[in-house]
Amino acid sequence: MPIAVKIQAVIEKSSWIRKMFEEGARLKALHGAENVYDFSLGNPNVPPPEIFEKTLRELVDSGEARDHGYMPNTGYPFVRQAVADHVGRVQGAAITADDVIMTCGAAGALNAVFKALLDPGDEVLVPAPYFVEYNAYADNHGGILKTVPTREDFTLDLAAIDAAVTEKTKIVLINSPNNPTGQIYDAESLAALGRLLLDRGEAMGRAIYLVSDEPYRNIVYDGATVPGIFTASPNSIVATSYSKELSIPGERLGYIAVNPAVDDRRNLLAALALTNRILGFVNAPSMMQRVVARLQGVTVDVSEYDRKRRLLCKGLAECGYDFITPPGAFYLFPKSPIPDDVAFVQALQEERILAVPGSGFGGPGHFRIAYCVDDKTITGAMPGFKRTIEKYR
Amino acid sequence: MPIAVKIQAVIEKSSWIRKMFEEGARLKALHGAENVYDFSLGNPNVPPPEIFEKTLRELVDSGEARDHGYMPNTGYPFVRQAVADHVGRVQGAAITADDVIMTCGAAGALNAVFKALLDPGDEVLVPAPYFVEYNAYADNHGGILKTVPTREDFTLDLAAIDAAVTEKTKIVLINSPNNPTGQIYDAESLAALGRLLLDRGEAMGRAIYLVSDEPYRNIVYDGATVPGIFTASPNSIVATSYSKELSIPGERLGYIAVNPAVDDRRNLLAALALTNRILGFVNAPSMMQRVVARLQGVTVDVSEYDRKRRLLCKGLAECGYDFITPPGAFYLFPKSPIPDDVAFVQALQEERILAVPGSGFGGPGHFRIAYCVDDKTITGAMPGFKRTIEKYR
Repeated sequence: MPIAVKIQAVIEKSSWIRKMFEEGARLKALHGAENVYDFSLGNPNVPPPEIFEKTLRELVDSGEARDHGYMPNTGYPFVRQAVADHVGRVQGAAITADDVIMTCGAAGALNAVFKALLDPGDEVLVPAPYFVEYNAYADNHGGILKTVPTREDFTLDLAAIDAAVTEKTKIVLINSPNNPTGQIYDAESLAALGRLLLDRGEAMGRAIYLVSDEPYRNIVYDGATVPGIFTASPNSIVATSYSKELSIPGERLGYIAVNPAVDDRRNLLAALALTNRILGFVNAPSMMQRVVARLQGVTVDVSEYDRKRRLLCKGLAECGYDFITPPGAFYLFPKSPIPDDVAFVQALQEERILAVPGSGFGGPGHFRIAYCVDDKTITGAMPGFKRTIEKYR
Repeated sequence: MPIAVKIQAVIEKSSWIRKMFEEGARLKALHGAENVYDFSLGNPNVPPPEIFEKTLRELVDSGEARDHGYMPNTGYPFVRQAVADHVGRVQGAAITADDVIMTCGAAGALNAVFKALLDPGDEVLVPAPYFVEYNAYADNHGGILKTVPTREDFTLDLAAIDAAVTEKTKIVLINSPNNPTGQIYDAESLAALGRLLLDRGEAMGRAIYLVSDEPYRNIVYDGATVPGIFTASPNSIVATSYSKELSIPGERLGYIAVNPAVDDRRNLLAALALTNRILGFVNAPSMMQRVVARLQGVTVDVSEYDRKRRLLCKGLAECGYDFITPPGAFYLFPKSPIPDDVAFVQALQEERILAVPGSGFGGPGHFRIAYCVDDKTITGAMPGFKRTIEKYR
């Protein structure tokens, strides 16, 4: 076998997803991309805020960004300070620049955290449905991702989490607002989760870490807010990115922020600086670090996503689809009208509608619609959505 | 133990390096940074070529770089095409855009390659002295780095490599021009290495991959050239970066280029696209991809490094140091006048000179001087270099 056995297995296992994407590409080639309604990708379509381009231009034109050399692996100190100030405000717990590590997006952040914390066989517990790449991120470092069900409305099921914690549980990973459901975990459930992890950890004589992947924190609707995790648990770590709030996922910019109250803080921070380096990230891209330092708290025009959300929810409700109206992110996770979500998504493809089966997110019986698309993709797809649900009535 | 056992061990094992850096920081705080001669870091001090800043400015001002969204995990097709055209010229073997994967620097490239190829216990063979991070890169993916000695002048010792290949050998990793020696492997030795790997691989019924990390390819002196590896072995992969040739290590831009003649090409390319994604790199930073696409073959002003090299070599030769004059890169790797290179480097610190012991590169009895520094650092350090060697006469 030329390539690694494990990688070969992943390639073969994911062949059904590839087939779906190939079918999408075939449809686009056949009918023209504009005649295919592609809801399959979470690639933000609202442009970066104007101030992002302005800041970038200023930094480049003024020559301030002229140093493209190495900086500390954890990032420029002034950038980490800017992030620390912002995180302190958002999380309601003051942190210092030392507690921040700039990373190559949330994916880079999570890998650095997992490598720093996981011993072989350690478990990462995640409420399902969940972002499916988490499986690989845990496995990369010898960990095992274990899912735990959420309630009917995709909120946290504390009893299920309590039942799922074992002596192997090292991390509970949450993603709020959630991909693929758009759900937000409220302050009360996070506080209860924090207490639960503290109690269970104490009984085992060690920490269970609460890790929060929150790239959709600022993409929320109807006045919703996303509670911080630092007040919920001392052993908590934010691992997140600017990809969604600034619409710059291609630039790979994110950070890790560690609760200053965490167990063995100095050692953990040293470990994260090390893992960010040796995994090959080395440091977060330098020029974009300088840009985001000036854009703390800046977010894309969320009203754009809100309009799309309303348009989609109204349309699908009229068709008879059953779903939770998402308070955040840019995904809708309706129930599949038939139990087999893969078959249903294939039926949507016959209407030139591309969505992703819930099975791909540990949420079978559902499907994911990424509504970060043109409004006319939403309106254009409605007749197809309608015909497809009617087929199964 | 809050953090992973393996990571804790690495932190403890590398404490002597940290102590050295702390001593350097202490000296700078005590005497002022300008009075400490710091040769410890390979951070390019020659600025990026003017055309780099010009291209960046043009892309930003024109709005051409306005799309900061996701692209295919392997990179923008037009960028991969530009790299493929260039690699084809340099390597003397035509390749297509499909054979190129844009990465987060060479560190990202090597991690993606190792994860794609290594099964647990597989060996990566590297001629020593070598860049010490390779240990971590192999270990990240269950591999084991094994060193093989080079000849007295740091060129390849084919007999030693032949003796070191086992049935666990999956990759032979070379770095030419070399960090820390500056040595270049000639075409004849690469051709012999290619034949050796093909023969030994055939006997085992599988490929042994030749992987070339060559970020210093364009930083060469006295008309030296760096032979390609694609003509040396069909199972060859370039994993490299723009960090040194454009002086942009902070931006994290590099690529993997796979020999189109490689065994099971399609599968390997799919594996690399997958590992680049799931390791958390996702894709190489988008805007810098656009910049480097226009700068294929562009290199910093190498005459600057050459001047420093001559200044350093002349000075150290006059002091009586013994070294190979490096044909490439920006490192000198002299013999330590005493067998204990760590003790010698500590003695240099007493003269406020910071260098790195050869032991840190699998080359004990030597020390590394990174001469990517101001000329006055070189001239200012000479009296101290002289006094230190005289102490041991």
